[in-house]
Amino acid sequence: MQPDLLPGTRAASVLQNLRHHSPLVHCMTNDVVQSFTANVLLALGASPAMVIETEEAAQFSPVASALLVNIGTLTAERRGAMLAAIHAANESFTPWVLDPVAVGGLAFRTQFAFDVLALKPAAIRGNASEILALAGEHSAGRGVDSADDVLSALPAAVRLAQLTGAVVAVTGERDYITDGENAWRVDGGGLLMTRVVGTGCALSAVVAACCSLPGERLDNVAAACRFMKRAGEQAIAASRGPGSFIPAFLDELYLLNAGELA
Amino acid sequence: MQPDLLPGTRAASVLQNLRHHSPLVHCMTNDVVQSFTANVLLALGASPAMVIETEEAAQFSPVASALLVNIGTLTAERRGAMLAAIHAANESFTPWVLDPVAVGGLAFRTQFAFDVLALKPAAIRGNASEILALAGEHSAGRGVDSADDVLSALPAAVRLAQLTGAVVAVTGERDYITDGENAWRVDGGGLLMTRVVGTGCALSAVVAACCSLPGERLDNVAAACRFMKRAGEQAIAASRGPGSFIPAFLDELYLLNAGELA
Amino acid sequence: MQPDLLPGTRAASVLQNLRHHSPLVHCMTNDVVQSFTANVLLALGASPAMVIETEEAAQFSPVASALLVNIGTLTAERRGAMLAAIHAANESFTPWVLDPVAVGGLAFRTQFAFDVLALKPAAIRGNASEILALAGEHSAGRGVDSADDVLSALPAAVRLAQLTGAVVAVTGERDYITDGENAWRVDGGGLLMTRVVGTGCALSAVVAACCSLPGERLDNVAAACRFMKRAGEQAIAASRGPGSFIPAFLDELYLLNAGELA
Repeated sequence: MQPDLLPGTRAASVLQNLRHHSPLVHCMTNDVVQSFTANVLLALGASPAMVIETEEAAQFSPVASALLVNIGTLTAERRGAMLAAIHAANESFTPWVLDPVAVGGLAFRTQFAFDVLALKPAAIRGNASEILALAGEHSAGRGVDSADDVLSALPAAVRLAQLTGAVVAVTGERDYITDGENAWRVDGGGLLMTRVVGTGCALSAVVAACCSLPGERLDNVAAACRFMKRAGEQAIAASRGPGSFIPAFLDELYLLNAGELA
Repeated sequence: MQPDLLPGTRAASVLQNLRHHSPLVHCMTNDVVQSFTANVLLALGASPAMVIETEEAAQFSPVASALLVNIGTLTAERRGAMLAAIHAANESFTPWVLDPVAVGGLAFRTQFAFDVLALKPAAIRGNASEILALAGEHSAGRGVDSADDVLSALPAAVRLAQLTGAVVAVTGERDYITDGENAWRVDGGGLLMTRVVGTGCALSAVVAACCSLPGERLDNVAAACRFMKRAGEQAIAASRGPGSFIPAFLDELYLLNAGELA
Repeated sequence: MQPDLLPGTRAASVLQNLRHHSPLVHCMTNDVVQSFTANVLLALGASPAMVIETEEAAQFSPVASALLVNIGTLTAERRGAMLAAIHAANESFTPWVLDPVAVGGLAFRTQFAFDVLALKPAAIRGNASEILALAGEHSAGRGVDSADDVLSALPAAVRLAQLTGAVVAVTGERDYITDGENAWRVDGGGLLMTRVVGTGCALSAVVAACCSLPGERLDNVAAACRFMKRAGEQAIAASRGPGSFIPAFLDELYLLNAGELA
């Protein structure tokens, strides 16, 4: 099964919604990508806020448009704060997104990721290894790099979506986004994006932003993937290497326009 | 009341002092802006040092030229370390600066910010919402973005300065800096600076650096604001978007010269 | 004593090994340089993974190609996690590297650094002040800046290498690398590299990556220094200031080729 490409007109319409609503994204993410994640959201017209103390996190997620939970540098303290934020988000109908970084190999984060699957994430964004692991299958992942082919993880993504009710995005050379029933494919980007830290983690933050928008969640999450792939391929064309890619990528996100996407 | 513009000759003289003394700034700041804050200080000719363990923080602030306390990602552990550093700074006459990120809405940081107001900050730097909240007034702030007009927060800044003895900088589209009696205005910058994370937080670090310099503290803090506004407007002129703004901004801070400021 | 320059052919051969093996580096590093460190490793073709929770750190270091321990923002919690990771690394013969940031002045980190010297680091990378302090000598260091001449710290580096069995790299305007018996000199770079945060810390991560490669460890560590010096001097030539240096530096690391090094 090869899902259809997300139509450009749908991505364009989600971009217009994103710029119009400027969602406030409560990011509970790992130590490595904090600044890049914030800059990606700002470039696209959303607003980031990193609130991590347990009480504050529970106080803030109901006020935010969406909550991102990324387990890249999970600790016992952050585990508690994330759980408090997720529960408060659920009580106030704030959508929350799980980025299960490197799940499967490391015991502490793997247990946490399985625990929160039951807490109704609006979306889950991971690479093929991570989605396979979350769906209970064997994976060949090494750290954050996916060693599995993305398409081969789509059946696992479909099952994970059916199990959790989340829209699941399995991303890599191509991205596949499914709600368990339908699926979209998103093309673009390029290998240089894997030589810069945080492109996947920042995508999850954009997914969270888009989960707060009106319209079909499946389309919204797929559009988030398309924004990053489109800005990525344009930035790669203008870059000598990963260093010049970073500013070019943020510029392209900022300059992204609906007409071009359509 | 519209305060006078800080004279360029005063900003120029503070820049010469900054380059000459190269102050060592003990930064206790949030997770998101650590690297950018350090790079801003280095570009201007100051030296950053991020020391966060409680005993070390208390050992280091007396050695540093100035201490920055930014509550953006405050936790219980950091609260203790910051208090230890502030007390040690005060005992050794090291000036310390408060950046009350998002104060007003979130309970834990708001309590901390009010607690430390009594500990004689040399300066306080915030956006309009934050300064209004610290002065006990209603604010329309949402996360770190100021929804209030900057000038309308100047009376609150004046009262906060009188209450605490600090120089208070309320910053945004324009910056106003007051010691409770006199005030300066600083123009420059541009909207693109709000699409990059950490420009305000980094300004607070530069304010801390300048609080350690000889001369009038009011002028020193206003000059810090001017450095950032000037480099900001120059970088914006050379940028396609927020991505290319970041390197251009650091370059402009590095290349900033007294003659041009004057 | 002025050691010989590392031959370009040796650096070239280590670069080929690095690209071929793409080592997975477990980075336990400070808050300020996480993103830059990851991007430096990725640009060179290695893979970073920041795993910090105590149990996970002990689970991960045996799987990684090498472990980096950087004490720049050490806390009590991180101290425990680092010790667990080091012990697990030693049991599985994963080489680990110590970056003793600002050792000597601050009590908590200094005690930790001396404690772990006995735990057989494969390499130690520091500036002159840090290496002098670790070798038990007086140093004029101020924060992370070295106030001592690099060559004058070479005898201390030699003794430290003999004492610990580690390859010791003392770096600054020039770099000296010794195993206690032989030594290499590495030239290149430039002053602008000291106006960007994290170049030294990221070098230590590259040292860790190279410690996992086949061949002589002394050559491998010296080659790591050479990669950074070479990319640094090329990036400086293409930069207006520290802002444009950062993307240029990552690009140069990415584009570095064995032919040119030789």
